[in-house]
Amino acid sequence: MGESSGGRKPTLIELNPNGGFVIGIDLGGTNIKLVLVDLDGKIVKKLKGPTINSSSKNKILDRLRELIHSVIDESDADRDLILGMGIGVSGVTDESGRVSFAPALGWEDMPVRDLLREEFKIPVAVENDVNAAALGEKLFGVGKTVKNFVFVAIGTGVGAGIIINGELYKGFANAAGEVGYLVMGDEYLKDYRKGFGCFESLISGPAIAARAANQMCSYDSASMGIAFCQDKNITAKDVFEAAKRKDKIALKIVEEVSKYLAIGLGNISILLNPEMIVLGGGISKQEDILLKPLREMIVKITPIPPKIVISSLGDDTGVIGAAAIAWNLVKHTSLIS
Amino acid sequence: MGESSGGRKPTLIELNPNGGFVIGIDLGGTNIKLVLVDLDGKIVKKLKGPTINSSSKNKILDRLRELIHSVIDESDADRDLILGMGIGVSGVTDESGRVSFAPALGWEDMPVRDLLREEFKIPVAVENDVNAAALGEKLFGVGKTVKNFVFVAIGTGVGAGIIINGELYKGFANAAGEVGYLVMGDEYLKDYRKGFGCFESLISGPAIAARAANQMCSYDSASMGIAFCQDKNITAKDVFEAAKRKDKIALKIVEEVSKYLAIGLGNISILLNPEMIVLGGGISKQEDILLKPLREMIVKITPIPPKIVISSLGDDTGVIGAAAIAWNLVKHTSLIS
Repeated sequence: MGESSGGRKPTLIELNPNGGFVIGIDLGGTNIKLVLVDLDGKIVKKLKGPTINSSSKNKILDRLRELIHSVIDESDADRDLILGMGIGVSGVTDESGRVSFAPALGWEDMPVRDLLREEFKIPVAVENDVNAAALGEKLFGVGKTVKNFVFVAIGTGVGAGIIINGELYKGFANAAGEVGYLVMGDEYLKDYRKGFGCFESLISGPAIAARAANQMCSYDSASMGIAFCQDKNITAKDVFEAAKRKDKIALKIVEEVSKYLAIGLGNISILLNPEMIVLGGGISKQEDILLKPLREMIVKITPIPPKIVISSLGDDTGVIGAAAIAWNLVKHTSLIS
Repeated sequence: MGESSGGRKPTLIELNPNGGFVIGIDLGGTNIKLVLVDLDGKIVKKLKGPTINSSSKNKILDRLRELIHSVIDESDADRDLILGMGIGVSGVTDESGRVSFAPALGWEDMPVRDLLREEFKIPVAVENDVNAAALGEKLFGVGKTVKNFVFVAIGTGVGAGIIINGELYKGFANAAGEVGYLVMGDEYLKDYRKGFGCFESLISGPAIAARAANQMCSYDSASMGIAFCQDKNITAKDVFEAAKRKDKIALKIVEEVSKYLAIGLGNISILLNPEMIVLGGGISKQEDILLKPLREMIVKITPIPPKIVISSLGDDTGVIGAAAIAWNLVKHTSLIS
């Protein structure tokens, strides 16, 4: 085993890294990304195609089937060596592999696991995409050697996946880690019906963009702001870029985002005392401007601050996470049978 | 086994409930409480004595030793049937059974486990008192059949013990559940150095009393308030009693406490999605006036609200929790040996 085990700790049961592959699928409302991955998380084949935007939920499923066949065919992998499949979905999934609710796909109560298992005759794992990404960080990313950590994805939405004792913790009703809902202060409580004042409404990409659009359009002396305002298509990334160029409004917004991030991640740290918080999603690309002040505040708020680390899987976090839940399932299946 | 297993689920290994006892000790700055408890958590002997207030940390230890001998002697239990001892301490403990820091006892880095194990020749478990109480609820209280729950103690201080998959979750550095530190809003961030604005500073007993003293003394038309103000010895209990008598200031304070409780417990629920939150400590005695509004708010804040339940162990939560960590240790020890 020595060399081929790639530095992992030896355990009683170990799979041969050259002995098989899994398919990881990141099923989003816009694109479907697929990878074929070995036991070490190495991508051997990658494929991406648009999710058909259709009112028929079955068309998305047909498109998914088609792309799965394509990634297998194009990879030249022996079909017998494809041991399982994992699908990460932005939405709520249940223990029976159903997607209970995925608004981006228009799916409700869709038995994805059973449908795909029937067609491809391999074990299929279905999981919320952020939970899958957390397990991806545990198996193949910066959380490899960490027993307890929280993966927080901040992009269009905000969510977390919790790893406790090396395993995904999902809570009583698969709703653990829905940190977008975190209440950030009592003044916001009045407006909870509008969803305003929760963590997501303060730090998500669209929230940052909306704040910038609002402030820049009502501010008459910032040339940068007026330029933005004219086309109205401000993105969170624009705000961070403007802040790097020392635009005053953008700097103020970034400062506020840092502060709310510190409160949210600080409170997660206070409750769970994780060794590490791993940041993923669009915001994780703003390390220099955001993370320094964030780390400084976290140290002041929490008795025992965690390491704040950027995901090492980058744009592949979603598919690698999906592959991770597939491997997790394959390992458990082979232990049982 | 049948009858003697008292309704518990049969497992491969089970201890005979009449075959032994453990000692549970709640070691506080004012009093030391001790119980002898059987496997079902039934108290067979109870003892309480003042903790000697002394600058010598060894005097507390001598007092503790003396009371342990007393509870054993007075119980008429066969010393051979006393299988272990658990001690709950308000402070930080470590994996080696040392009390790292317990300001109420004046202890730092005290090797309690080793000292008592040497003298009494039985396994000794040492744990933070709130963590111990959480395990007490799991083994003998309202959490018996619940896999994932959070025990929150609100009294002089505020802390939580987290049960995940039926076991105590302690975090990376034994600091999980230190919810007294939770940041409750951005306006408080300015004052974090003074510890003002955290959960504990808003809902602990002393915080409620201080708020009442402040407001009542500066309010000139509340007869109830003025009566309180004259003697200045307002307690949180007085505030709740006054609220029950419809005192306006007291009602306003209780409303604020409910609101902060809802935010704190709501955020715990959002992150962990527990089946249940168990409330202990002084505040748990205010079920009628506090819990109804609290439950209503929690339902609005969290996507999947937990049951909010009062501890069933009452004033014995501390000692029963200490007995629980002793049983937990004894079970693990007998599985290993």
